[in-house]
Amino acid sequence: MTAGSARRFTDGRVPDPGIAALFSRESRLEALLRVEAALAQAEAELGIIPSHAGDAIAGAARLDRLDLDRLDRETAAQSHPLTPLVDELARAAGDCGEWVHWGATTQNITQTADLLLLREAHGRILGLLGDLLRALSKLADDSAHAPMPGRTHSQHAVPITLGFKVAVWIDEFTSHVDRLQRLEDRAFRLLLGGAVGTLASFGGQGRALEAAVARRLALRTMPVPSRATNDGMVELVSALGLLAGTAGKVAKDVYSMMQPEFGEAFEPIPAGTVGSSTMPHKRNPQLTLDVMTASSQLRGLVAPALESMLHDHEANGAMTGLLEDSVTRSCVLAGDVLARLVVIASGLEFDPDRMRANLRLSDGLIGSEPLMLELGTKIGRQRAHEIVYDVAQAAAVTGRDFAELLAGDPTVSAHFTRAEIGRILDPESYLGESAEIASAMAQHAREVADRLQIPSA
Amino acid sequence: MTAGSARRFTDGRVPDPGIAALFSRESRLEALLRVEAALAQAEAELGIIPSHAGDAIAGAARLDRLDLDRLDRETAAQSHPLTPLVDELARAAGDCGEWVHWGATTQNITQTADLLLLREAHGRILGLLGDLLRALSKLADDSAHAPMPGRTHSQHAVPITLGFKVAVWIDEFTSHVDRLQRLEDRAFRLLLGGAVGTLASFGGQGRALEAAVARRLALRTMPVPSRATNDGMVELVSALGLLAGTAGKVAKDVYSMMQPEFGEAFEPIPAGTVGSSTMPHKRNPQLTLDVMTASSQLRGLVAPALESMLHDHEANGAMTGLLEDSVTRSCVLAGDVLARLVVIASGLEFDPDRMRANLRLSDGLIGSEPLMLELGTKIGRQRAHEIVYDVAQAAAVTGRDFAELLAGDPTVSAHFTRAEIGRILDPESYLGESAEIASAMAQHAREVADRLQIPSA
Amino acid sequence: MTAGSARRFTDGRVPDPGIAALFSRESRLEALLRVEAALAQAEAELGIIPSHAGDAIAGAARLDRLDLDRLDRETAAQSHPLTPLVDELARAAGDCGEWVHWGATTQNITQTADLLLLREAHGRILGLLGDLLRALSKLADDSAHAPMPGRTHSQHAVPITLGFKVAVWIDEFTSHVDRLQRLEDRAFRLLLGGAVGTLASFGGQGRALEAAVARRLALRTMPVPSRATNDGMVELVSALGLLAGTAGKVAKDVYSMMQPEFGEAFEPIPAGTVGSSTMPHKRNPQLTLDVMTASSQLRGLVAPALESMLHDHEANGAMTGLLEDSVTRSCVLAGDVLARLVVIASGLEFDPDRMRANLRLSDGLIGSEPLMLELGTKIGRQRAHEIVYDVAQAAAVTGRDFAELLAGDPTVSAHFTRAEIGRILDPESYLGESAEIASAMAQHAREVADRLQIPSA
Amino acid sequence: MTAGSARRFTDGRVPDPGIAALFSRESRLEALLRVEAALAQAEAELGIIPSHAGDAIAGAARLDRLDLDRLDRETAAQSHPLTPLVDELARAAGDCGEWVHWGATTQNITQTADLLLLREAHGRILGLLGDLLRALSKLADDSAHAPMPGRTHSQHAVPITLGFKVAVWIDEFTSHVDRLQRLEDRAFRLLLGGAVGTLASFGGQGRALEAAVARRLALRTMPVPSRATNDGMVELVSALGLLAGTAGKVAKDVYSMMQPEFGEAFEPIPAGTVGSSTMPHKRNPQLTLDVMTASSQLRGLVAPALESMLHDHEANGAMTGLLEDSVTRSCVLAGDVLARLVVIASGLEFDPDRMRANLRLSDGLIGSEPLMLELGTKIGRQRAHEIVYDVAQAAAVTGRDFAELLAGDPTVSAHFTRAEIGRILDPESYLGESAEIASAMAQHAREVADRLQIPSA
Repeated sequence: MTAGSARRFTDGRVPDPGIAALFSRESRLEALLRVEAALAQAEAELGIIPSHAGDAIAGAARLDRLDLDRLDRETAAQSHPLTPLVDELARAAGDCGEWVHWGATTQNITQTADLLLLREAHGRILGLLGDLLRALSKLADDSAHAPMPGRTHSQHAVPITLGFKVAVWIDEFTSHVDRLQRLEDRAFRLLLGGAVGTLASFGGQGRALEAAVARRLALRTMPVPSRATNDGMVELVSALGLLAGTAGKVAKDVYSMMQPEFGEAFEPIPAGTVGSSTMPHKRNPQLTLDVMTASSQLRGLVAPALESMLHDHEANGAMTGLLEDSVTRSCVLAGDVLARLVVIASGLEFDPDRMRANLRLSDGLIGSEPLMLELGTKIGRQRAHEIVYDVAQAAAVTGRDFAELLAGDPTVSAHFTRAEIGRILDPESYLGESAEIASAMAQHAREVADRLQIPSA
Repeated sequence: MTAGSARRFTDGRVPDPGIAALFSRESRLEALLRVEAALAQAEAELGIIPSHAGDAIAGAARLDRLDLDRLDRETAAQSHPLTPLVDELARAAGDCGEWVHWGATTQNITQTADLLLLREAHGRILGLLGDLLRALSKLADDSAHAPMPGRTHSQHAVPITLGFKVAVWIDEFTSHVDRLQRLEDRAFRLLLGGAVGTLASFGGQGRALEAAVARRLALRTMPVPSRATNDGMVELVSALGLLAGTAGKVAKDVYSMMQPEFGEAFEPIPAGTVGSSTMPHKRNPQLTLDVMTASSQLRGLVAPALESMLHDHEANGAMTGLLEDSVTRSCVLAGDVLARLVVIASGLEFDPDRMRANLRLSDGLIGSEPLMLELGTKIGRQRAHEIVYDVAQAAAVTGRDFAELLAGDPTVSAHFTRAEIGRILDPESYLGESAEIASAMAQHAREVADRLQIPSA
Repeated sequence: MTAGSARRFTDGRVPDPGIAALFSRESRLEALLRVEAALAQAEAELGIIPSHAGDAIAGAARLDRLDLDRLDRETAAQSHPLTPLVDELARAAGDCGEWVHWGATTQNITQTADLLLLREAHGRILGLLGDLLRALSKLADDSAHAPMPGRTHSQHAVPITLGFKVAVWIDEFTSHVDRLQRLEDRAFRLLLGGAVGTLASFGGQGRALEAAVARRLALRTMPVPSRATNDGMVELVSALGLLAGTAGKVAKDVYSMMQPEFGEAFEPIPAGTVGSSTMPHKRNPQLTLDVMTASSQLRGLVAPALESMLHDHEANGAMTGLLEDSVTRSCVLAGDVLARLVVIASGLEFDPDRMRANLRLSDGLIGSEPLMLELGTKIGRQRAHEIVYDVAQAAAVTGRDFAELLAGDPTVSAHFTRAEIGRILDPESYLGESAEIASAMAQHAREVADRLQIPSA
Repeated sequence: MTAGSARRFTDGRVPDPGIAALFSRESRLEALLRVEAALAQAEAELGIIPSHAGDAIAGAARLDRLDLDRLDRETAAQSHPLTPLVDELARAAGDCGEWVHWGATTQNITQTADLLLLREAHGRILGLLGDLLRALSKLADDSAHAPMPGRTHSQHAVPITLGFKVAVWIDEFTSHVDRLQRLEDRAFRLLLGGAVGTLASFGGQGRALEAAVARRLALRTMPVPSRATNDGMVELVSALGLLAGTAGKVAKDVYSMMQPEFGEAFEPIPAGTVGSSTMPHKRNPQLTLDVMTASSQLRGLVAPALESMLHDHEANGAMTGLLEDSVTRSCVLAGDVLARLVVIASGLEFDPDRMRANLRLSDGLIGSEPLMLELGTKIGRQRAHEIVYDVAQAAAVTGRDFAELLAGDPTVSAHFTRAEIGRILDPESYLGESAEIASAMAQHAREVADRLQIPSA
C-alpha cells in the first residue's frame, strides 16, 4: 500500500515505459475504431460493401465522434462489449453507417484491436531490452577484471569477476530477445474469420479480405482464422514469464550483494531517498524489490494463460477474457520490470575493495580446486581429492589456516613449498576466462541491442 | 476488451459488491489515518506520548486535512510509501505533530490499514455467501423433485434430481463459510511489533500498546508481531482459491446445462441483451463466463501468495508487496464471482420437460444398475454384471432398444417379464434419496445463511 | 488409484512411448558414464590428461563394471550424488583411474547426462507429434465435408464441418513442432565450464575442451558455461506446457462431442472394456480423461520450472533439482499425452447423421447471420440486425419456428419469399470455407510430419 | 540426478517418514481390500446382503489370496482400475463372491481406500510436526539470548536474538498444526453414495450403510455423498502448500546464515560428507536445498489441486485422477520436508561470536532508531528523524563512524554526550522483548507438541 497515487511508490524514480497507458480506455477505443476502419476500407476495396462506404466509415472512426456517455449507457443496456460502439460508429458514419462491421463478429474486432496494442507493447519491451543490454554491456566491460568469490549453494566455490556474473545475465537477456522476436509470426496475426472462422460471411472473398485488412494493419494472417486458437499469444506470456525468471535472478543477485555482510554492489540510491520511517539509517533496495515482486506476479500469469487454451468447441469467451487479462497484465509487468532493471544496471555501484576482501574470507579454502589439480598431476586426482578434502575440512572445522595445514601435510609438502602453496591458493591467479567471457558478452550485448534499433518510449 | 468503461461489460447487470472501492486511494488513505490515530491515542493512554497528543493527532487524521498533491510530490521525492503521509499528518496536528507515528515502523501502519480493509472485504464476501446460500436454498427446494440424468465422465450414469445437484453446490459453499470464519483469528491480527517485531521501540510497554491499539481497531494481536509472518493472510487467499474452485464448477454446470443439446437450465438473460454483433439469435451465457474467468484468475493468485511466504530474515518488502497485491485482488475477484453467482442462482430457469426427455435419451441404458442389482439378487452380482454388460454394450453399439434386448436374453427373461424390465428401467423410480438430500441441504443453507446475519453491501 | 501395477489403468491400451524408461536408474547411470567417457577422451586428445587414459577410461565406463551396491552404500556415506560413481569408475579404470573426472564439477557431468536423455525424450516427443499429425491429417480429410454446428460460448453459432475443427487442432500442433525444434539450439547445450563456468580448471584449454566434448556428444556449446543459466531447459518445459494446452483442448472437444446429448464423435472403445463396476452400460471416455489429467499436471510444472530460474550467485542446487524434476516429469507426461492422442485421433469415430441432426436443433436459428446479411444488403446492416434480433429472440423465448416468424415479419417478407427464407436458413449452404481449410491443413499436417522424419518409439 | 538409487542423495542421512511406502502397490491393494471388507460386513449387518457373506468376504480380503499377475492381465484387458480386483476378491470369497462390491461404484472403493492412506499420512505429518516443534522449542530456548542483527529488505534494521527468529518459525508451524487438525472433519469422509451419490443402490438403507461402514473405518460421513465434492481434500493440499511456504522460509534463513559472509548458523554436516567432486573444501548445505526444492514442488501442486475441483456434472474422472496425484504427492513431499527440518533444527549449530560481530558491522548505524527516539523525546520525532537521517546517510556514504558524526552534530551534542550516544547505540541494549518472545514460543511449541501426542514413524 502506498499513500501516494502511483501504483508503486518508486514510480517517481523510474521512466514510465508507457505500456499501461496503451490499455487505457481511450487507447483501446482508438484501436477498436482503427480495426473497424480498416475492415470497412478493405471491404470497400473488394466490393463487399459500396466503394464510398470505406472512406466514409474510416473518416467517422474517430474518438471525438463518439458519445462516450451513451456508449456506457448502451453497454449496460445491451450487456455487450462491442455493439454499442458499432452503433455509435454507424451513427457517425451517417448514410454509410449501415455498412459498418459488415460480416465481422465481435471477437474479430476486439481481438485484433488488442493485438495492435500488444504489438506496440511488444515493441516497447524489445526497446527496453535494448536499453538494458546496452547498460549491461557497459557494466560487463567495467567489471570484467574485478575479482570476487564465485558462490554455489551459498558457499564460496572458485573466484570469478563481476563481469562474468554480468555475462550470465546478458546471455539470458539476449535469448529473451531472440524468443520475443521469433514468436512475432505466431502472436500477431489478424483474426478475421467471421463468427467461428469459416469466412462464410464474406461471400467467398474471405481470404482476400483477410489479406487486405492484414496489409492495412501490418499484421500476418492465420492459416485457420479460428477464435479458439491463441497459442501464439500464450507463447508471448510464456516468453515474458521466462524473462521474469531472469529478472528475478538478477534482482536476487543485486539484493544479495547489497547486504552489509557482502557490501559488493548496490542499486543506486538517490540522495533524499528515505529507507524507513523509523530507522533513519536505512538504505534499502527498492527497485530490486519491485523487480522481485513483479517477477513473481508475471510468472504467476503463465498458468492462467495456459489454462486459457482450454476453449471448448469453436470458442469460450471465458478463455478469451482470461487470456486478454493475462497477456495485458504480463506486458505491463514486463515493462515495469525492465524499466527498473535499466535504472539498476545503469547505476549499479560496485566496491572492488570489498569484493577482493570477500575473496579472502575463507582463508585460502577457495583455492582448494587448483591445489587439488596441481597435486593431482603428481599423485593422481582421486588421492589428491582425499588428501585435500581432509585438510580442508580440518581447516573449516577448526578455523586454522588452510595453507599452514597444507604445508604441514607430508604428501603435500613433499611436492610443494610453502610459497608454492601460497601462489596456488592466490584467488586472483585462478580467474580462468572470466574476463574474456565478460568482454565477449559485452560485445554480444551491444550487437544485439544495435540490431534491435527500436527506440524505447 | 470492452468498449464501455466498466471492467466487465456485464457490470451494469450485477450489483456492485463494493470491494474494489475499498481499495481506492481515498479509502486506503483513510485507513492509514485511522491506524495512525489509534496508535497515537493508545500511546497517549499509556503515557508513551503526551496525553493530549493522542486526541490532537486523531482529530487531525482526516482526509480533508491532507494536501494530496504535496503527498504525491513528496512520495516521488522521498521514494517512500508512508513518510510523506506522516509528514502531512504531523503538519495537520500542529504542535503535537512531533508525536505522530511514534515507535512504529512503516509496515506496522500500512499492513494494519490493509487489514482493516481486508476485514471489511471479508465481511462483504461472507455477506454475499449468505445471499448465495439463500438463493441456492430456494433453488434446491424448487428443484428437489425435478428428475434429470446424473452424469459421470460425460456419460449418463443414474438419475438424479436437479435439487441433488444444487445440494452438492450448497455443501461446498457452506464449507467455504466455515473456512472463511475459522481463519479470522489468524488473518486479522494487528501488526505492531516495531521495526522487526521485538517491540523495542515502545520502552517496555509494547505488549500493552498492542492490546490498546488492537482494542481500538477490534483486531486480534500476534504472539510474535513479526513482519515475516503472514500465513493467516495467505490462508485467506487459499480459502478464496477454494471458493473459486466451487464457483468454477457451478459455472461449468450451468454452462453445460445451457447448451442447446442439453437445454436443461439457463442463467437469466434479460430482455434487450445482445448476444452477438453478427448472429442476432445468440443467447450467450455471460455471467457464467465471468465466473469461469474470475475463477481461473483467483485460483492463479494462490501460487504467488504462497511464494510471498518466502521472506528472508525479518522481512523482504518484495514478499510483502506480492502478498498485498494477491490478497487484495483475490478479494475483489471473490466479490465479482459471488455477486454474479447470486444473480445466476436467483434467476436460474430450468426446463423440467427437457430434463425428463434427456433422461430417456439412452433408451433405458441409464437403468442398467437397478436391473443388474435386481438380477444379482437372483443369480449373483458378478454374473449379473457380465450378462447386463453384454446386453448393454450390444444396445449401445447397435442402437437397438435395451429393454427389448434384455427381454430377449434367456437368463434375464427367466427372472423378469418384459413389464418388470420396463418398471425396473424407469429412471424416475430410481432417484434414490435425491429429494431428501436436496431438502436437507436447502434447510442447511438457510441455517448457515441465517447464522451469518451479515448484510451484504 | 489403480489396482493394477500400471501407472494408469489404460496403459495396456496405449503403446509405451518409452520416455519414462529413459529416466530409469540404469539409463541414467549409462548416461553419466557416457559423459565421463567423452570428457576423458577429449581431455586425452587435448593432452590435458595422458593420451592413453582417454580410451582406458572410456572402456571402463560400462554399467557392468560398477558395483551398484557399493555405489548405494557410498552415496549414503558421502551424501554426494556423483563422487561414489567417480570412485567406481576410477576403480574400473585401474591405473588410469586417477584421471577420471579431471577438472570437471559434478554438475557438468550430471546436467550433461540429463541433457542426453532429455534430447532423446525430445526426439521421441517430436516422433509422436509426427504420428499424431498423420492421424489428424487423415481425420481432417475424412471429415472435411461432414457438417455440424459451430459453437461459441456453448451456443450454436454458424455451421462448420468436423474437418474444420480438426484443422484448428492441426494448426496448434504444427506450431508446437516448430517451437520444439526452434528451442533445440538453446536447450541442448553442453555444460562444461568447471566449478562455476570460468573454465579455470582446464588450464587455458577450456574452450577447446568444450568443443571436443560437444562434438563427441553431438551437443552445442554455451557462450557462458554457467550452471546458473538454464533458460533453454525452462523453455522446453514451457513449450510442453503449451502443447498440454492444445492437448487439453482437443480432449475436451472429444469429451464434449461424446456426450449422449451430442453423440457426434467418440474415442475408440475396444470390445471388452469395462466402463463401470456398477453400471454395466457405461462407455466412458478413458484416454481423453488421461489427457485432461496429464494436461493439468504438465501445465502445473511450468510454474516450478520458472521458479527454478531464481538461482542465487553462481548456482543453487535447490533450483537445479527443481528444474531437473520439472523437465523430466514434463517429458514423461508429454509422451503419455501424445501417445493417447495418437490412439484417439487414429480411431476417432464420428456420426455424420447425428451431427447433421444437431445442426437442425435450433429450428433454423443457426442461420440468423446469413439472413441478417442478405436482408442487410437491402435495408442496411444495423436495421437488419434489429429486426432479425427481435424475431430470433421471440423464436427462442416462445419456441416458435424461426422461419415462420420471419415470414410473418412485414419487412422481411417485403424482401424474401418463404422459400427464399428457407434456402437462406439452410445450414449446409453456409459452411463457408470449412472444407477448403480442412483439406489445406490436412496437407500441411502431412508435410510437417514428413519433414520430421523421426520415427517414434 | 543421483547415481545412487535413492530419490534424493541425502536419503541416507534422513530418517524415512514412511509416507511414500503408504502408496506402494501392496499398501494400496490392502487398503482397497479393507474397504471392500468393511462394505461387505456392514451390508451383511444391515441385511443388504446375506448375513454370512460379510465375514466370508472380509476373510477373503487378503493380499495373499489374490493372483497379482492375473490382476495385471485383467486390468489391461478390461481397462478398468477396479473390476479385476473385484473379480479376484469374488473368486477368493467362493460362494459369497457374488455379494462382493454390492451397490458400490468403483470410486466409492478407490477414494475411500485413498482416504485411509491419506489419513495415515496426515497422522505422520502431524507426528513430524510434533518432532519439529520439540526441536525448535529447544533451539529457541538455547538461543533466546543470543544477539544478532535483525534484517529487513537485506539491510540491518534493529537487533534481535536468534531465539526471536526461531519464535517466528514456531508461530507458523503451530498454525499449521491447527490448520491440519481443523480440516480433518472435512477431509476424511467416507464416500459411499453409490454411482453418483443418491444412495439409490442401497435400497433405502444408504444412510444406515454409510454410518456402519464409516464406523468400521473410523471415518466421518458426508452430508452429500457426491463424487464431485472434494474440497476437503483440496484443502489438505492447500494446507500443505502453506506448510511448504514456512518450510521454504526457514530453509532460506538457514541457507542465508550459513553463507561465509554471515557465518551465523549451519545445518549439520556429518563428518565424511563430500561437498564437491572438484572443490574439496566445500561444506554445502544439503538438507536446506532439499527443503527448498520440495517446498517449490509442493507449492506447485496447489494449482492442479484447485483445478481438480472443476468437475462437470456428477463427476469427471480426469479431475479425480488429478486430485489423487496432487494430494498423494503433496503428502510425500511434506514428509520429506519435515523429516529434513527435524534434522536441521535438532542439529543446528550457531556461532554467537560471529553473530555478535555482525551486529557491529554497520558501525553503530543499527542503533539509529533508539537514537532518533531518545532525541525525539527532546526535540520531536519529525525533527529527530531529519537530523539522524542526514547524519546516518552521511555515515553510510562516506564510511565515517556514526557515533563520531553524531557527536559532531550541534543538535545531537546539545542533548547527549559522546558516552551517552555510545550507550544508546549499543545494539545489545536494544533487543526489546526478543528473549521473552523466544521463551514464550518455546513453551508454546512444547505444549502444542505434547498435545499432538502422535508418535512419528
